[in-house]
Amino acid sequence: MSKKYVYLLFKNEANASMRELLGGKGANLAEMFNIGLPVPPAFTVTTEACTRYYDDGKKIGQDIIDEIDRAIPELETVIGKKFGDPKNPLLVSVRSGSRASMPGMMDTILNLGMNDEVAEGLAKLTGNPRFAYDSYRRFIQMFADVVMDLGKSYFEKILKEVKAQKGVELDKDLTASDLQEIVALYKAEYRKLKNEAFPQDPHTQLIEAVKAVFRSWDNPRANIYRMREGIPYSWGTAVNVQCMVFGNKGDTSGTGVAFSRNPATGEKGLYGEYLFNAQGEDVVAGIRTPKPISDLQKDNPEVYNQFVKVVETLENHYKDMQDMEFTIEHSKLWMLQTRNGKRTATAAVKIAVDMVKEKLLTEEEAVMRVGAEQLDQLLHPMLDPKANKKVIATGLPASPGAAVGKAVFSADVAEEWNKKGEKVMLVRIETSPEDIGGMDAAQGIITARGGMTSHAAVVARGMGRPCVSGSNDIKIDYAKKQFTTTSGAIVREGEWVSIDGAKGQIIEGNVPTVQVEMTGDFGTFMSWVDKARTMTIRANAETPRDAKQARDFGAEGIGLARTEHMFFDASRIQDMREMILADTLEGRRRALAKLLPHQKKDFKELYRVMDGLPVTVRLLDPPLHEFLPHTEAEMQELAHKMGVTVEKIKERAEKLHEFNPMLGHRGCRLAITYPEIAEMQTRAIIEAAIEVGEEGISVVPEIEVPLVGSKKEFDICKTIIDGTAQTVFGEKNKTLKYLVGTMIELPRACLLADEIAETAEFFGFGTNDLTQTTLGMSRDDTGAILEEYRAKGVYVGDPFATLDQEGVGQLVRTGCEKGRATRPNIKLGVCGEHGGDPESINFFQSCGMGYVSCSPFRVPIARLAAAQAAIKAKKGEKKAA
Amino acid sequence: MSKKYVYLLFKNEANASMRELLGGKGANLAEMFNIGLPVPPAFTVTTEACTRYYDDGKKIGQDIIDEIDRAIPELETVIGKKFGDPKNPLLVSVRSGSRASMPGMMDTILNLGMNDEVAEGLAKLTGNPRFAYDSYRRFIQMFADVVMDLGKSYFEKILKEVKAQKGVELDKDLTASDLQEIVALYKAEYRKLKNEAFPQDPHTQLIEAVKAVFRSWDNPRANIYRMREGIPYSWGTAVNVQCMVFGNKGDTSGTGVAFSRNPATGEKGLYGEYLFNAQGEDVVAGIRTPKPISDLQKDNPEVYNQFVKVVETLENHYKDMQDMEFTIEHSKLWMLQTRNGKRTATAAVKIAVDMVKEKLLTEEEAVMRVGAEQLDQLLHPMLDPKANKKVIATGLPASPGAAVGKAVFSADVAEEWNKKGEKVMLVRIETSPEDIGGMDAAQGIITARGGMTSHAAVVARGMGRPCVSGSNDIKIDYAKKQFTTTSGAIVREGEWVSIDGAKGQIIEGNVPTVQVEMTGDFGTFMSWVDKARTMTIRANAETPRDAKQARDFGAEGIGLARTEHMFFDASRIQDMREMILADTLEGRRRALAKLLPHQKKDFKELYRVMDGLPVTVRLLDPPLHEFLPHTEAEMQELAHKMGVTVEKIKERAEKLHEFNPMLGHRGCRLAITYPEIAEMQTRAIIEAAIEVGEEGISVVPEIEVPLVGSKKEFDICKTIIDGTAQTVFGEKNKTLKYLVGTMIELPRACLLADEIAETAEFFGFGTNDLTQTTLGMSRDDTGAILEEYRAKGVYVGDPFATLDQEGVGQLVRTGCEKGRATRPNIKLGVCGEHGGDPESINFFQSCGMGYVSCSPFRVPIARLAAAQAAIKAKKGEKKAA
Repeated sequence: MSKKYVYLLFKNEANASMRELLGGKGANLAEMFNIGLPVPPAFTVTTEACTRYYDDGKKIGQDIIDEIDRAIPELETVIGKKFGDPKNPLLVSVRSGSRASMPGMMDTILNLGMNDEVAEGLAKLTGNPRFAYDSYRRFIQMFADVVMDLGKSYFEKILKEVKAQKGVELDKDLTASDLQEIVALYKAEYRKLKNEAFPQDPHTQLIEAVKAVFRSWDNPRANIYRMREGIPYSWGTAVNVQCMVFGNKGDTSGTGVAFSRNPATGEKGLYGEYLFNAQGEDVVAGIRTPKPISDLQKDNPEVYNQFVKVVETLENHYKDMQDMEFTIEHSKLWMLQTRNGKRTATAAVKIAVDMVKEKLLTEEEAVMRVGAEQLDQLLHPMLDPKANKKVIATGLPASPGAAVGKAVFSADVAEEWNKKGEKVMLVRIETSPEDIGGMDAAQGIITARGGMTSHAAVVARGMGRPCVSGSNDIKIDYAKKQFTTTSGAIVREGEWVSIDGAKGQIIEGNVPTVQVEMTGDFGTFMSWVDKARTMTIRANAETPRDAKQARDFGAEGIGLARTEHMFFDASRIQDMREMILADTLEGRRRALAKLLPHQKKDFKELYRVMDGLPVTVRLLDPPLHEFLPHTEAEMQELAHKMGVTVEKIKERAEKLHEFNPMLGHRGCRLAITYPEIAEMQTRAIIEAAIEVGEEGISVVPEIEVPLVGSKKEFDICKTIIDGTAQTVFGEKNKTLKYLVGTMIELPRACLLADEIAETAEFFGFGTNDLTQTTLGMSRDDTGAILEEYRAKGVYVGDPFATLDQEGVGQLVRTGCEKGRATRPNIKLGVCGEHGGDPESINFFQSCGMGYVSCSPFRVPIARLAAAQAAIKAKKGEKKAA
Repeated sequence: MSKKYVYLLFKNEANASMRELLGGKGANLAEMFNIGLPVPPAFTVTTEACTRYYDDGKKIGQDIIDEIDRAIPELETVIGKKFGDPKNPLLVSVRSGSRASMPGMMDTILNLGMNDEVAEGLAKLTGNPRFAYDSYRRFIQMFADVVMDLGKSYFEKILKEVKAQKGVELDKDLTASDLQEIVALYKAEYRKLKNEAFPQDPHTQLIEAVKAVFRSWDNPRANIYRMREGIPYSWGTAVNVQCMVFGNKGDTSGTGVAFSRNPATGEKGLYGEYLFNAQGEDVVAGIRTPKPISDLQKDNPEVYNQFVKVVETLENHYKDMQDMEFTIEHSKLWMLQTRNGKRTATAAVKIAVDMVKEKLLTEEEAVMRVGAEQLDQLLHPMLDPKANKKVIATGLPASPGAAVGKAVFSADVAEEWNKKGEKVMLVRIETSPEDIGGMDAAQGIITARGGMTSHAAVVARGMGRPCVSGSNDIKIDYAKKQFTTTSGAIVREGEWVSIDGAKGQIIEGNVPTVQVEMTGDFGTFMSWVDKARTMTIRANAETPRDAKQARDFGAEGIGLARTEHMFFDASRIQDMREMILADTLEGRRRALAKLLPHQKKDFKELYRVMDGLPVTVRLLDPPLHEFLPHTEAEMQELAHKMGVTVEKIKERAEKLHEFNPMLGHRGCRLAITYPEIAEMQTRAIIEAAIEVGEEGISVVPEIEVPLVGSKKEFDICKTIIDGTAQTVFGEKNKTLKYLVGTMIELPRACLLADEIAETAEFFGFGTNDLTQTTLGMSRDDTGAILEEYRAKGVYVGDPFATLDQEGVGQLVRTGCEKGRATRPNIKLGVCGEHGGDPESINFFQSCGMGYVSCSPFRVPIARLAAAQAAIKAKKGEKKAA
């Protein structure tokens, strides 16, 4: 049986729920028809027709053409006009409309149906030849440009020449006969360029226009937009064919756009602008200044009141703030589009809270109305929107927020200058764990290499430092202490530079920043959020400052304290290196004994901040070579300090070198080969817990073993941990409860989670590493490939930012199911980057995770995302029941 | 209900099938009882008792002691002797016996039950006081050493002193009273060392001895042996307590060992030796020279004939060559042990073939009788077993066979010297793809780093070059062109060195080698093998020489031709580097055009050798930086040749550098970013097939896309391949059938195999990479960890040598099942190292794979393993039916 490719929107064939098939615009037009609002009749060619267009090798099927041909007479009948009839001509607009809003990305053709006869007839019919020929010349230009791809410039040149010749400045000052002359010149130009006459048959015009809209789905700017927004290429666009109404029929006509509430602040009340005697494109073009919508009340109170009523109807119907386009033709109001309006985070929160007060929404519905990702805006300072900004390069929006500082090119300099009170921007080709001090000292970080989940990006987000990573536009010269950009800019050490981490922009000079205000509504809103969610939200943090930040943002524990971060501190790295360079167990133990008090102090501080909330501490994870010095000078310094030869250090470094450190000697493999490290860490964790216990703070430490791939590996580590804990208990003559669990971050761990759960008391899913191994992609190396992959549709999103549910998700779900099968009450949580990503959080809810853990600055986002996931899950259950 | 820990072997409580519980020795003793052979009565303490001993923290449970205590009177009754009864004393031997044979690895105690009174009684009873005190002194010494861990040296010193004092040379020249004196001295020494008297109570002696045997399961040499043989620690050992019979009761007594056929050649007929008036240990000790077993026929025809009959009975019963121990006490034959005898590969094949002729075995049973791994012995030359060898270092047995050559320390020198007709041994810290020429030119390869599946190991096995990899004993100094060993040896460039690749030994000097003869039986045997198997066997090969070798060994196609190996050739690497350094598509195409004729020639040669058999060609896989020069000098040379600056080369190398190349820009990711490479390769594959077609050779090329993780990735590559093929067909005005499939080597590919199979026509499982990603272990980096892991029982075998069925196997099975679900007739095969590993092959059979592909030298092994897997599967099915 044949598919239906064309829907008549004025015949109750469609409604707002058919967004996937008809696109947002078509579905909402149908809905407006259905609730009785004044909408010019229209039909929609479905997104499936677009998909078929591509499947058929960019050809439109004859059956689809036939269906369009059958729709036209229906349109003619309902509007009482006829295609190509000079006495009563039907003109239509042809617009794209996809499932997700892609403003300005695809093509639109207005006034379709125009030809020589129609123009002449329309001139007579309206008694307004200027209007008729203006519409015709606009149509020719648009058709030539958009449908035939001939380019605007030829036609703009003609227009300019005629205006010069006539001595007029503005289009509106051209007379009807001027325009008639332009039409003739346009047609001649068209014939010259295309080697054929401008098509006079409206039917031909229409089919070509539909094809052009389909084609525009695949244009470069649409592809880039989709990639950025994570919209699948496979969705396709619908095409809306709608009877034209004219806002340019004189002073009782006009056109405008309006929001039902202020999209920047959320305040209730119409917000928008309109222009009299104009078509939609004029409002956007910026040649004439539109008037605020409130002026319409004086200019045409009747239409205004009608519009206010329509807006009220729409808001009540959609229960959301609306973004509308309308046209007034001879004082008659026509609604051309409505959709839920985009808004700032501030506005989103306010509107949600207000609509609950107005009883339009329940609290849970309100929670669903704010994009979790969007909350981020409320949590970081931003560049002053009013300031002048010269973007000199772009990169990946690795960590949001604005930062301004003097460029420095090494972590040491960053720390040094910071101590002197300078604000610095750390600029590196890439960062490594050793740079942490410098990253912390910097206002923001710029890197030339590495993706959204590179070291720089992950650490920056963790610290709440703005970061632009992997900027291909810049070339860093460490020797000269400067970077140059492809746009020709040079930034030298000590020169100011600014970044917008949310946009991935690098901006010249010292741009002022502003802190977005949090309104009282935010608190109200977050209280509903916390009521709705079932997962707890923890933070990844190891410093008291980060832990404090996390609690301020509502974290309910620490899901991942990475103990290795504690070793990079300048005061400790020395002891760490001594440990690594020691030849004997004895030597290692000596060095570890020096590290112990530091670790213990760290844990005590962490426990105090978290004040009884759970704290998961992961044992040492990275390969040891990460701690060794890399440059000759550093090696010599270390050799000198330690009283060994440089050769010895080099030999050890050489021995520790790995081809693929990600798959090397790290994680629990360290604990197994150097049990003394795990012993020292366990001792620090347990002693710290006992000691803060004496201060009245009760803590149940969760000791986490990284990179486990089998039960036996875990058991060996657990034996070390339990043995050490017992020793400490004996020494202190005290015991306390603690848990021993494991990271699940290897495919094998997921597959054998049932066995591992026999002895592991909790699972922390490390989805970063799990993604790397499942996909065989190192996040440090595949930034460029991933971009190409996303451009080619291999992955819709960045799998390191949003969990690859199809692939990695299977393993995560298996891990959860097998873990629970063995130990029904096992604690399950996520502590990878995905723990702060809303879409991934929704998936984790469906796996039955107990918590997600993310960087402190993402805690509010995770709270909201978890609430939304819980609400969706509840709805899904109800539906299923 | 309580478990049974002790089995009386003489009461039909047990039989040969109870090997797991009773160990091999105990089960076979029971079986010999059951078929009526003369066996001294015995009971066995089970392996489960041993496991419990360890579970209980190295304590033997009272219930087990009670069971042993109840078994003793039963033994006393059946033999008619009594523990500690001077008039009729029961003496027993206490021996270990595990499920798998572990010769000499654990402890044995003879003559247990001896004490002062018993010795005296026995002297009277036998009229042979010399015998009585000799037995007693042996027992004290053994008990002190083995059970009490006091060490032999104290007692050996006493023995030596007394012999010196008495002026005798040999033990047998000591008189009864000399021995009595020694006993007294031994007891005094025991008291001195242990601070307690030598235990007189046989019951105490027995329980201590049982514990000692349990303990010996965990001794270092047993642990090392198990690790090497892949025997799980968890199995534990049984303990056999058996009535002593005495071969040292004078000249009508004796003891011996015999095989039912020659274990070296397989020839039928008794093979072994015996000693009159001796206990078992004397045969082994080598002080007296034993006589060949044939002499027994003259010495004692009655016993000989009885023994011949017993051997016949045993061979007919077990239907296998037997390895037996026996004792003659006063002309009465006692069988102490029988087991299936170990044999050389030559013998194994001959015995299997002979036993079919003798109608003892069916052909399929015969196929099961030769260890697949063992066949390897028949395929490589070996070091002359008679030559003197000084092992100076050991490493991993990375590639079997013997090699002898002059040490060289770079691949270039290896090639150079080889051209001059020198035999060279390539010694490298590790090897990289660039070294392939040198590896090929060398007789053998030694590396200081890297595991069994390191680059050196994999390539060496592929080439059939012997290799010892990852030798921690050697330290290579490239600058001085020499290596030193921990044993103090120095080998300089140009000095001879030999290796035994099967044993992992590095041997001083030029050791002569011998080629093992293949007998005519080998052909007969392999014909049965080929009849039995259901999987086809292909080879991994890309050179005509390897392909020819593979066919000679019976390969039925090429399962993996790694095209990148074709680029490392000196004549091509230049063009390859030009391609990589090109800035533009144009430049790359120019360089690729130069590579095309080479690739095509390679494929044509390959097709000709394979003459119609299937050939799977994998597109370029490794990251491009592998092809770039590494040293400054090489870079300068390249820069000079190409007319670019060294900086440009460095810049490009820097840009291509990856932190984890294994997870980087490689595999199909190359085809997607540089489609022109895949186009060139496809063109070469298809043009070559068309051109050899004109020679009358029909070939269906199987084009394989590496490292696919999603259907979309595969489809992008398939589009490039199909498009190129169509172009070539058009140009040549010919078409031919070809298949496009993919490697399945990422966890994600297994999980989404159903989708990938929609368009992929075959799957080649790359289990090397799949293991690396599933376990999160780089095979180049984790050699040392893996060794530690195996020592600690995390993995029983090396997961890179034998597939980790529990973990990786789940993914492989999922991949097969999902692939077949979408495309029931999909071609499934394996082309990793595991494709040549018998245990893994057995697993692949169970997954329903159609073929396995391995290095040419392993093809016969794979054929046999596949046959054995098919036979086992058939048996399993029958059992299930």
